[in-house]
Amino acid sequence: MKGIQMADTPLLRDLLRTNTDYAEVFDRSKLVIPPAKKLAIVACMDARLTVEEFLGLRTGDAHIIRNAGGIVTEDAVRSLIISHELLGTREFLVINHTDCGMLTFKDKDLQDKLTKKTGVNAAKVNFHAFGDLEENVRTQVERIRTNPFLPKDIPVTGFVYDVRSGKLNRVT
Amino acid sequence: MKGIQMADTPLLRDLLRTNTDYAEVFDRSKLVIPPAKKLAIVACMDARLTVEEFLGLRTGDAHIIRNAGGIVTEDAVRSLIISHELLGTREFLVINHTDCGMLTFKDKDLQDKLTKKTGVNAAKVNFHAFGDLEENVRTQVERIRTNPFLPKDIPVTGFVYDVRSGKLNRVT
Repeated sequence: MKGIQMADTPLLRDLLRTNTDYAEVFDRSKLVIPPAKKLAIVACMDARLTVEEFLGLRTGDAHIIRNAGGIVTEDAVRSLIISHELLGTREFLVINHTDCGMLTFKDKDLQDKLTKKTGVNAAKVNFHAFGDLEENVRTQVERIRTNPFLPKDIPVTGFVYDVRSGKLNRVT
Repeated sequence: MKGIQMADTPLLRDLLRTNTDYAEVFDRSKLVIPPAKKLAIVACMDARLTVEEFLGLRTGDAHIIRNAGGIVTEDAVRSLIISHELLGTREFLVINHTDCGMLTFKDKDLQDKLTKKTGVNAAKVNFHAFGDLEENVRTQVERIRTNPFLPKDIPVTGFVYDVRSGKLNRVT
């Protein structure tokens, strides 16, 4: 692309060095596409959630879908359909967490900020900010349970992960 | 919810037992919301990608956004905006991978399968299946670079992760 230079940052160099070390000892080359535990998880993108680690999941065990808030958006549903229909997952988890950034703002504030900053109207961008954590988990679980393209009989469990204690607290 | 029983599966019990152990030795209670490395990553949900591990990222370092394919969907853009505007990330990575399930089907096949199975017309569900891995990475990076609500000057790098070797191969 004209005018676009390849990024070259200290962070990028660090990450690539680490990956070279990782690849040198890599021993999971025989893993197959379908997740070994037939599990798919929708969780928040928050940096303090290392989802595989706090659930004891190993590489190859589960599909991990993550976005701001751990919201069952249209895109998360797309991923869950592919996960279930094509790759055989049979159990879903939804994981939100305490101290979530999504509790700290209102959609309208961010829309106004963006519109002002970019000159492009951001009023239609739905950010899915929320005010009640447990209620939000219930809403996301309900979205999965009522989606016409996701199976009715699949177990779906909703949690709040506590970033202070590392503990998952069950909501649904 | 009437008629909905709480899920209780052997897998769920295993995961919760593991989490109890995790919480017992948990020592990251002082991490703050903004990612320490000011980094956000869009990657595929594939079970074989333990993103934090193959990049040497620790809990608290980076926002991890994941969906089927590692696609910069409207929802991934939503997450990136929140990540940058509210939580200060200043560098983005896009990570697709070899042997991706998204290379194995066409949107129309899955739409037809779902329509037939559920009786609800799935013709408008965009699954974002793709045929060329490197081209797909370039498309996703370009979507970030051209989105009016994401900053023009942020470094964005695209990779293909090799699930046989554990190696990240740079595309952009």
